[in-house]
Amino acid sequence: MKKSILVVGSVAFDDVETPFGKRFNALGGSAVFFSLAASHFTKINLVGVAGNDYPDAAISMLHRHGVDTTGLEIVDGLTFHWGGRYHADLNRRDTLYTQLNVFADFKPKIPGTYRHTPLLFLGNIQPALQMDVLNQLPAPEFVVLDTMNLWINTTRPALVEVIGKVNLLVINESELVELSGVSSLLKGLKILHQMGPQYLVIKRGEYGSLLSSADGLFYTPAFPVELAADPTGAGDSFAGGLVGYLGTCANIDGTCLKRAIVYGSVLGSFCVENFSVDGLLNLDRRKIAARYRQLRHMVKI
Amino acid sequence: MKKSILVVGSVAFDDVETPFGKRFNALGGSAVFFSLAASHFTKINLVGVAGNDYPDAAISMLHRHGVDTTGLEIVDGLTFHWGGRYHADLNRRDTLYTQLNVFADFKPKIPGTYRHTPLLFLGNIQPALQMDVLNQLPAPEFVVLDTMNLWINTTRPALVEVIGKVNLLVINESELVELSGVSSLLKGLKILHQMGPQYLVIKRGEYGSLLSSADGLFYTPAFPVELAADPTGAGDSFAGGLVGYLGTCANIDGTCLKRAIVYGSVLGSFCVENFSVDGLLNLDRRKIAARYRQLRHMVKI
Repeated sequence: MKKSILVVGSVAFDDVETPFGKRFNALGGSAVFFSLAASHFTKINLVGVAGNDYPDAAISMLHRHGVDTTGLEIVDGLTFHWGGRYHADLNRRDTLYTQLNVFADFKPKIPGTYRHTPLLFLGNIQPALQMDVLNQLPAPEFVVLDTMNLWINTTRPALVEVIGKVNLLVINESELVELSGVSSLLKGLKILHQMGPQYLVIKRGEYGSLLSSADGLFYTPAFPVELAADPTGAGDSFAGGLVGYLGTCANIDGTCLKRAIVYGSVLGSFCVENFSVDGLLNLDRRKIAARYRQLRHMVKI
Repeated sequence: MKKSILVVGSVAFDDVETPFGKRFNALGGSAVFFSLAASHFTKINLVGVAGNDYPDAAISMLHRHGVDTTGLEIVDGLTFHWGGRYHADLNRRDTLYTQLNVFADFKPKIPGTYRHTPLLFLGNIQPALQMDVLNQLPAPEFVVLDTMNLWINTTRPALVEVIGKVNLLVINESELVELSGVSSLLKGLKILHQMGPQYLVIKRGEYGSLLSSADGLFYTPAFPVELAADPTGAGDSFAGGLVGYLGTCANIDGTCLKRAIVYGSVLGSFCVENFSVDGLLNLDRRKIAARYRQLRHMVKI
């Protein structure tokens, strides 16, 4: 019996320029990347906000992927719009503009039909809103939190409070350093575990990721792609593959989590091969399983 | 029956400053780091040059580690002396001075007793000298080459010629990009294989390393250390662990090479935990095997 996932995050239009092309008004937002990646594993309940410019076709596409949009509020105004340009090496990007629009006043409301969703993914929004979502759910089985440097620097106490209530924190390396205050990986992990989470996942982009728990460390490489066309959404897709796989585990234990970060790498790789969410569509469990096997083979002797 | 290794490289004094301390006139040089790391696996024949200021105690220490120094020329003058300072994050360093001294006129001479050494490690010296060493050996079984950006930029044709004659090229990521002319990992590897080497090892520092061959890719993480005190010599120690392990394989095949890069990560980790060569001394096969097992465990599900 698969476990469904409640995701709270942004729904956006992205204008993206990379060395390999440009896209305007492309579908984006953490909740959308996450949902599409996770939808290949289990059912998704999405909570977010969009303007009345958000296309019906996008909502139909989400429905076709098993994403329930009862919790997607459509309000008067424009959808969150982000513009960015990547440098030649794709590891650096400049944000050209961030038009929050209707996202500025986002107050997540959890539909009654979502209240007993077993898995919760708190996407990268203000920690106070993440806490508010947590408080609206009676007893989620497993809670995963994402965040970003902005919240570490501006709302640290609220962030630390919500971190204390989650099972798994997913962050990147620079966020680990900023949040822990130390540059040593092992010391930083120790400090973050003391804040509460039993599990930590550190994203290292093209260098893969690692899982830290009481059982020690587990590493997986990133799945190497021929061409990374657009890194936008890679982290959210990684989280989608990870939490999506958790939805298929009878017991969410260390073994399940190890496999989950490998699936995270796989979904991240499909995301970056194409612009916007395109790499997450036209996927199936067979293609996903093939990359999982290939990636596991790359660490076997 | 173990295979011995002939190593050609630098013998130096290092003045090093890192956030964790300073050392002056510390033992260094690629041939010395390599030899000490590899000495835990098999016998080493060292070819290099030092000035008459090089301490007898250092030579005795090499002998105690099974390093034959017949090929270490001692000439009138001062030993190669390098000074460098690391930044807070240890991934960046400034070279303060490079006094080549007797190393400026180094012409490797292979003693007759070394001519049938089965394994050859061509440390990072001018490609013309690397080729000269190759030409002095009748039929080495397996040849490993290291190089650096300097030779890629200044003596590319000579470097490409010697690369065409080796079995394994060990370089870091930025060297892969400069040598191949492309920033894509997979494309860069393809271009380098076409230059000749059957095996390529790409070093990624704290992110581990990967092996590329006709069988595909194999990844290993770096062994995570509590404290990296001094990264000097990490790459040479990695190569020493790698080639040292090759010396223990009856057949140098893909399986042997996969294990070898894991041993490379292990020896690199022992190196960086202490200043100079200190981390490579007082080691034994048991300590090395323990880290090998730990590192393999970190990728197992």
